[in-house]
Amino acid sequence: MSTGDRDSFRERLPEGFSVRDDLGQPGSFPHTRGIYRSMYSGRLWTMRQYAGFGTARATNARYRFLLERGTTGLSVAFDLPTQMGYDSDAPMAVGEVGRAGVAIDTLDDMRTLLGGIDLAAISCSMTINATAPILLALYTAVADETGVPRNELRGTVQNDILKEYIARGTYIYPVAPSLRMVSDLMAFAAAELPQWNTISVSGYHIREAGSTAAQEVAFTLANGLHYVERALERGIALEDFAPRISFFFAAHNDLFEEVAKFRAARRIWSRLMRERFGASNRSCRLRFHTQTGGSTLTAQQPLNNVVRVAIQALASVLGGTQSLHTNGYDEALALPSGEAAELALRTQQILAEESGVAAWADPLGGSFLLEYLTNSVESEALAQMSRIEEMGGSAAAIEYMRDEIHRAAYSHQLDVESGDRVVVGVNRYETEAERTPMAGPDYRNLERHQVSTLESFRDERDPGRVESALRRVRDTARGDGNLLPPMIEAVKRSATLGEVSDALRAVWGTHSRS
Amino acid sequence: MSTGDRDSFRERLPEGFSVRDDLGQPGSFPHTRGIYRSMYSGRLWTMRQYAGFGTARATNARYRFLLERGTTGLSVAFDLPTQMGYDSDAPMAVGEVGRAGVAIDTLDDMRTLLGGIDLAAISCSMTINATAPILLALYTAVADETGVPRNELRGTVQNDILKEYIARGTYIYPVAPSLRMVSDLMAFAAAELPQWNTISVSGYHIREAGSTAAQEVAFTLANGLHYVERALERGIALEDFAPRISFFFAAHNDLFEEVAKFRAARRIWSRLMRERFGASNRSCRLRFHTQTGGSTLTAQQPLNNVVRVAIQALASVLGGTQSLHTNGYDEALALPSGEAAELALRTQQILAEESGVAAWADPLGGSFLLEYLTNSVESEALAQMSRIEEMGGSAAAIEYMRDEIHRAAYSHQLDVESGDRVVVGVNRYETEAERTPMAGPDYRNLERHQVSTLESFRDERDPGRVESALRRVRDTARGDGNLLPPMIEAVKRSATLGEVSDALRAVWGTHSRS
Repeated sequence: MSTGDRDSFRERLPEGFSVRDDLGQPGSFPHTRGIYRSMYSGRLWTMRQYAGFGTARATNARYRFLLERGTTGLSVAFDLPTQMGYDSDAPMAVGEVGRAGVAIDTLDDMRTLLGGIDLAAISCSMTINATAPILLALYTAVADETGVPRNELRGTVQNDILKEYIARGTYIYPVAPSLRMVSDLMAFAAAELPQWNTISVSGYHIREAGSTAAQEVAFTLANGLHYVERALERGIALEDFAPRISFFFAAHNDLFEEVAKFRAARRIWSRLMRERFGASNRSCRLRFHTQTGGSTLTAQQPLNNVVRVAIQALASVLGGTQSLHTNGYDEALALPSGEAAELALRTQQILAEESGVAAWADPLGGSFLLEYLTNSVESEALAQMSRIEEMGGSAAAIEYMRDEIHRAAYSHQLDVESGDRVVVGVNRYETEAERTPMAGPDYRNLERHQVSTLESFRDERDPGRVESALRRVRDTARGDGNLLPPMIEAVKRSATLGEVSDALRAVWGTHSRS
Repeated sequence: MSTGDRDSFRERLPEGFSVRDDLGQPGSFPHTRGIYRSMYSGRLWTMRQYAGFGTARATNARYRFLLERGTTGLSVAFDLPTQMGYDSDAPMAVGEVGRAGVAIDTLDDMRTLLGGIDLAAISCSMTINATAPILLALYTAVADETGVPRNELRGTVQNDILKEYIARGTYIYPVAPSLRMVSDLMAFAAAELPQWNTISVSGYHIREAGSTAAQEVAFTLANGLHYVERALERGIALEDFAPRISFFFAAHNDLFEEVAKFRAARRIWSRLMRERFGASNRSCRLRFHTQTGGSTLTAQQPLNNVVRVAIQALASVLGGTQSLHTNGYDEALALPSGEAAELALRTQQILAEESGVAAWADPLGGSFLLEYLTNSVESEALAQMSRIEEMGGSAAAIEYMRDEIHRAAYSHQLDVESGDRVVVGVNRYETEAERTPMAGPDYRNLERHQVSTLESFRDERDPGRVESALRRVRDTARGDGNLLPPMIEAVKRSATLGEVSDALRAVWGTHSRS
C-alpha cells in the first residue's frame, strides 16, 4: 500500500519542484519542513504517554509512575462508557467499566485522576469526543477549585466527532448537534482557555481502521476544513480558533512514507488555510500529536514490537511531530505492563538524547526520495480531498470515506494473507509460541468499586440543585447558546457524566448508522 | 563528538557541491550513494550474526539455531587463545578457553564447527587476524575433504593486523612479517579462492576503542591503503586482489553522522583507488560489513539496548552496508542468550521486510543535511589521512593513531561524566536496578572438555608427518614463498593451531609494545 511508485522515481528533485515555494525553510510557509525554525534543538517534542485503566486512583498511580520516569505530558484514555456518555452503573456499562481506559463519572473522579499533578505545569490531553465538553467541564472545574487560572491550562480534547462516524464509532447524537457542540467548545476555549487545543483532528483511527497513508491525510484534513467552516458559520473569528486546532496522526512502519506523510500534511494544510481563508502564519501551521501504530504490533514474539515502535517513533520525529505516544510492546496482548510502559518512554528518550536526530530541523529535507514521496502523498491526498469537496464536504462524505477505508483495509489483509506483505513472526519467521497469558487487572472488582463510589457520590448531593442545572443544559441544547458554561455549572453541582449526556439525548436523540 | 557544526550548516546543498561528481548515481563512481545500482531491492544485505563460545559443538548448535531463524551468513567469534596462537592446553590459555569465542585447536574442531553447514551455499566470516592464515587453512582443508570446490567458497577473514597494533591488541609477531602474511593470504586467495574476501579492514575496533566517526574512517582507509601498497610490492596485480578487499565498520547511535560516515568512506576510497592506482570500477568499490556498537550498550535497563541496536542497524542500512551483525540486548551483561540473539536477528528482518527502507538506494541522498555531514566527515578524515601519509603511512603512524584514539576516548568519557552526553539509564533516567545475574555457560567444564579432546587428537596422529610439515612452515617463513600452502598441508597432517603459530614464533619472534 506504499505511496509512490519505484519506477516513476528519478534520482533528482521532482520536475518543477521549487525549493523556495514547495519546501521553504523550517518554521516558514508552507511549513513542509516543520512549524518551528529551531525545532527540537529549541525544545523537544512532548513525550505524552496515553494511559488509563480501571479507577481514577489506579490511573493516577500510573501517571505518577510515568512522570517519575520522565514523561513530559499526560494523555488520558477513557473507558467506553465514559466515551459514550454512560455512568458506570448504567446497564450499557456492565462489563466495560475501566477496561479501555479510566472510568470517570463525577467531579470526584476527576479530582482523584488529577490528584497531586500541577495543572499549571503539565499539559493534559484527553481522548474524548462525543462527551468532550463534559470532560473539559470537569477538568475546568477541578482547575477552578484548585486555584489554577483558566488561562494557564494547557491541554487537548480530541473533540473530533466526524472521524467517529467515519472510523471509530463512539458517537452519540446526530451529526448536526454533534458538530454544533464542537464549535461551542471552540468558542468557549477561545474566550476562556486560550492555551487549550480545542480539537485534535484525528487521522490515527482512520489509519488504524485500515486506510492508506494518503487517505489518512486526505480524510483528516477534509474533516479539519469542515470544522473550520462550521466554526466560521458559528461566528467565531478565524484567528480566535484556528491557532488552537491540532491534529493527530498514526506512525506506521514504512519509515519514509510516514515522514513524507507528515510533511505533505503540513504543506497542504498551510496552503489551504492561507489560500482559502487568508489565515495568518500562526493559524496555518499544522501542529500534531503522533501515536505509534497499535495495529502494526503483534501478539507473536512481542519484543519485536520494541523495534517497530522505535522505527515508528523515529518516523514521527523526523516528520516533525509536536508530541508523541510510543506503544508498549505488550499492548497486542494486554494492558501495557509497567515495564513495557517504561521501555516505551525510554525509546523516546533514547531518540531524543542519544540518536542525534533532535539536533536538526527536517533532516531529510532535500532528499530526492523524500521530496518525491512527499509530492506523491500530497497529490494522492489532494485528489481524495477534491472528491470529498465535490460531495459537499466531510459531513456529506462520511459513507464514502468509510467505504474507501474498508477497501484499503481489505486489500492490506489480502496482502498479508498471501504473504506479499511480510509481518515478521506472523506470516514469516514464525517460532513456536510459548504464549504466557498476561495477568491483567481485576476489572470486575474495579467495576464494583467504581459503582459503589458513584452511589455514595449521588447520595451526598442536593438533587434539586442538580436537576435545575441539568434543566439549563437541556434549555441551552434546545436553543443557540454555548453549552460549556451550563455544563461546567452542572458538574460543579455534582451532575454526573451520564446525567449530562442524558440531558442532551433527551433533546437531540441519538444517531444510528444508516 | 558529533561531526559537523550546527552553526555552519546551511539549509541547501553545500557550496560547490556537484550532484554529478560528488554524488553520482547508486552503483556508479564515486559510489557515495552505494556500490550497486539497485541496492537492497536487488538483494538484501547479508544478515550475519557474530557468534561463538565454548566448544565447536556448542557454537555449531548456535549457528543452526540462527540459520533456522533466518540468518543468511555465519560469523565466527574465536576465543583469545585461538586468536593469539595458543592451543587450549597452553599455559597462556588457562581461564580463557571458549570465553570470548569458540576454541579451535585442530582440524577436528573445524569439522565440528562447520558440521551440517553447506559451505557452497553459505558464506562464513571469521574474526581472526594474527592467526588468520591458519584458520583459513583449516577452513580450506574442511572444504577440500567435503568436496566443496575452492572456487565456490565464500567468506571473509578479518586479517587486518594493523588495527591490532593500533586498537585491539591480538597481534603476535613483529609488524613486518605480520604484514607479509597478510599479503601471502591475499596472493593465495587470488589464485585459489576467488570469491573469498581476503581482508576486512576494520574500523570497528578503532571506533569501539573510542575514536570519532571521522577517525574511524581515516585510520581504516589509511590502513587499507597500506595493505594495497604492500600487496603491490609483493607483486600481486591490483585487479587480482583489490576487488576482494572488504571493510568493517561500527554503527553507533548518531544516526545521521553514521550514515554520512559510510557515504564519505565510500567516496574517499573510490577516489583514492582510482586516482592513485588507476583501479577499475570493480576495484574501487568499498564493500563493508557493519556491527552495531557494543560499547554503546548498557548493563542498566538492558531492553533499552533493543532500541539502540534498531537505530544503529537502520544507520548501517541507510548507509548501504553489505552485511550486518546486530548485537543482543544482553551483551553488556553476558554472552547473548538465545532469546536476545533471536531478537537481534528479528530487528534486521523487521528493517528488511517491514520498514520499507530496503526499497530504495541511498534514500537520504540529496538531503541538505546528509550531504553537509558527508562532506564534513570526508574533510575531517582526509585531513587525518594526510597527517598519516606525512608520517610515512599507517605502519609508521601506529603510535599516532593510538594516541588520537585515546584522546577522543578520554574526551567522550569526560562528556559522559559531566552529563553533557546523556546515556539513558546511566547518567539520566536511572531506575533502581534489580540486576538479575545472568547464568552463563560453565566455562571451566568446557575448558576441561576441550583440553581432553585436544590430547586425544594429538595421541592419534603421526608425529613424524606433523614435524616435517611444521619444518616446511618454518622454512617458508624464513624465505620468501607463500605461507598458505605449507600451512594447509600442516593442518591436514593434524598440526594444531598452537604448533603452527609456534613455528612462526620460532622464526620471527614476537612483538612487544614499545
